[in-house]
Amino acid sequence: MLPAELIRKKRDGAELLPEEIAEFIGGYVSGDIPDYQMAALLMAVFFQGMTATETADLTRTMMNSGRTHTFDLNRPLIDKHSTGGVGDKVSLVLAPLAAACGLAVPMVAGRGLGHTGGTLDKLQSIPGFQIELSEADFARQVKDIGVALIGQSEDFVPADKRLYALRDVTGTVECVPLLCSSILSKKAASGAQGLVMDVKCGSGAFMADLNGARTLARALCSTGAALGLPVRAVLTDMNQPLGRAIGNALEVRESLDCLRGGGPADLREITIELTAEMILLGQLDLNLESARETAMKALDDGSALEVFRRMVERQGGDANVVDNAELLPGNCEISDFTADRDGFFAVKDCRGFGLAALALGAGRRKTSDEVDPAVGLVMRARIGDAVSAGQPLISIHSRRGAALEECRSFLKSAISLVERQPDKPPLIIEKIS
Amino acid sequence: MLPAELIRKKRDGAELLPEEIAEFIGGYVSGDIPDYQMAALLMAVFFQGMTATETADLTRTMMNSGRTHTFDLNRPLIDKHSTGGVGDKVSLVLAPLAAACGLAVPMVAGRGLGHTGGTLDKLQSIPGFQIELSEADFARQVKDIGVALIGQSEDFVPADKRLYALRDVTGTVECVPLLCSSILSKKAASGAQGLVMDVKCGSGAFMADLNGARTLARALCSTGAALGLPVRAVLTDMNQPLGRAIGNALEVRESLDCLRGGGPADLREITIELTAEMILLGQLDLNLESARETAMKALDDGSALEVFRRMVERQGGDANVVDNAELLPGNCEISDFTADRDGFFAVKDCRGFGLAALALGAGRRKTSDEVDPAVGLVMRARIGDAVSAGQPLISIHSRRGAALEECRSFLKSAISLVERQPDKPPLIIEKIS
Repeated sequence: MLPAELIRKKRDGAELLPEEIAEFIGGYVSGDIPDYQMAALLMAVFFQGMTATETADLTRTMMNSGRTHTFDLNRPLIDKHSTGGVGDKVSLVLAPLAAACGLAVPMVAGRGLGHTGGTLDKLQSIPGFQIELSEADFARQVKDIGVALIGQSEDFVPADKRLYALRDVTGTVECVPLLCSSILSKKAASGAQGLVMDVKCGSGAFMADLNGARTLARALCSTGAALGLPVRAVLTDMNQPLGRAIGNALEVRESLDCLRGGGPADLREITIELTAEMILLGQLDLNLESARETAMKALDDGSALEVFRRMVERQGGDANVVDNAELLPGNCEISDFTADRDGFFAVKDCRGFGLAALALGAGRRKTSDEVDPAVGLVMRARIGDAVSAGQPLISIHSRRGAALEECRSFLKSAISLVERQPDKPPLIIEKIS
Repeated sequence: MLPAELIRKKRDGAELLPEEIAEFIGGYVSGDIPDYQMAALLMAVFFQGMTATETADLTRTMMNSGRTHTFDLNRPLIDKHSTGGVGDKVSLVLAPLAAACGLAVPMVAGRGLGHTGGTLDKLQSIPGFQIELSEADFARQVKDIGVALIGQSEDFVPADKRLYALRDVTGTVECVPLLCSSILSKKAASGAQGLVMDVKCGSGAFMADLNGARTLARALCSTGAALGLPVRAVLTDMNQPLGRAIGNALEVRESLDCLRGGGPADLREITIELTAEMILLGQLDLNLESARETAMKALDDGSALEVFRRMVERQGGDANVVDNAELLPGNCEISDFTADRDGFFAVKDCRGFGLAALALGAGRRKTSDEVDPAVGLVMRARIGDAVSAGQPLISIHSRRGAALEECRSFLKSAISLVERQPDKPPLIIEKIS
């Protein structure tokens, strides 16, 4: 079928055949089908959607567009993915924790863009940490210590790489079948046998409303099922940053606290819950409560921290940071954003915290931007807290310069102090599988 | 506004501001906005539509993307445009006829693509006929004889040229605001003060159903009004070819018959009606019946033919063809497509006649194809005619070769012979202004 005819077919609401999807994606990756025809198809998909079958076909085609990882292990290979939010450093704690609990976690992670941070950027604030491993080293490390956290190599799901970049500039990001195929093609290609999805919901998330998050979660579960990749989705709150730290080295420091059995309660709770779900998916346990206890124990007895240390060593990083967080990039000026009146702490737009950190240099406006590992924010209040005028709400870790003004203005529009105590949003909203 | 944000704005159903439309189109024409972002916007417009204001803003921006024609005449400048069909040679007769009636017709015409023919291709079957005139020659000819029929120069509405090519390959042709802005930007740029639109309706037209044709007609009228270009739309039948001839030289020959006061009744009727509407738009008459009589007289007394002759002369063509149609390209083999049973002649898909002529070489599959001026079809039956087995239904003018098989197979699927006499479709369906 001619590309233009296939675009019209989807535009008019018909279901595309597996071979039509394969031909279009294949043509796009090989360069025979130009960006403009793919852009038109993506927008048609945005409006007409895709059936479960189409989404699975698309995911499978994307997955097979490059080299896929295979492992020969006697541990269950279970991965986790988050739809992204502000202060989401769960992977840093969860990956070594899950490995300490007996799972294998071959995690291919991403970089930050816009208001959300990226696991790779966080890890790279550890001096020397390498995110590029050869195929053989990746497999060996996962076999030896149960975990590796790496970036995408050139030939890893190239269809997603090109599609994601195109969607970003053509207004076709927020589309369930496209989100679904992007996430699952990578996770399936990384060799996972099961996947726990952290679907964030709230003003700092990609899906602000609960219905959207539910729709995405259901699509992920059913597409996963069609591909033979069991998916459990946990809907979690993103109406305020997760944990207290936002910014790369600051988040590593907070992750280390959590790996030592401490850290903020919300980060600990969500990490334990997701890890417990991974343990169930990997069938190392059949009972959620005892799986939670396994995870808690591995945090509290230092075994998760030990796996983290070995991962840092194996990936060329300075493992001394594990015991001495002062070795992480720092040397920032620290100033406070204070309450201008008495009231209860509320969040108007959680994205604003991410944008405030971005303004300081903690993230990227465009993919070619450099990230400053040291800068960021530390939250000192949570939704519902009573605060009084002059009280520090947020500590700002910044470099000298004008960015501070922009940062403060983002914070100002993110926060509101209200007279009636707002409800504290539930952290774990619901589960879908 | 960033291009991606503007795409999202339209995608989410919001109305674009004049300056946003101007910036996007301007950026596209200058090359700052790539094809893929325009393709995404076009598909978003396909689904979300455009308000009357947006359509007018888009049309104005496109019109001003290149050089526009201006004339200083004491005749009203009135143009005609057809949405295209099979055997539609009306412009060849109407343009000189309207000039003979006292109007000025500075017609910028197009080439054929797919199943529809193009006025320029038909004219170029006259040996020597030039469709490229300098700005000065174009203006002088319109001033001297009231009519010129030319092609689009490079700098004539370049936005439309690029958009049309992109729409063709991205499944975004059939979209009322985009059709509307494409047609009207060119007609307004050509200097017309009024426009009669022949909106074809039926299986050989772009808009097969009456509702679609009405929607397009209304959008053309209201957008024209917003631009200060009065538009009258006439919905006409395209369930069978107009006239009998399909193919370039064959259609010129039929047009000459009509200019001599003869020719097929449907071609004469439609040409007279559209010309009469132009006379009213140009305010040379206020009464439709007497405007029709003016047009009829100019056909019957040879004055329209005389203008045609002078146009051919001025544009470098061999004016002898006017008196001797044998000088037109010919030398084809002529064979008949005959009825295989008794019955009434009916048309299943009028596009099939266009595709049959295309198969012979009368048209283009892609823009770079060469056209054979001599080949084509002559219809020998009309919808509702009783025919008997073995009776010739269509004469095929072809070159030796295999194309004949393909042509006959298209004809076979276009025609049906039925037992009950089908209604003859009304030629002029309704008018909208």
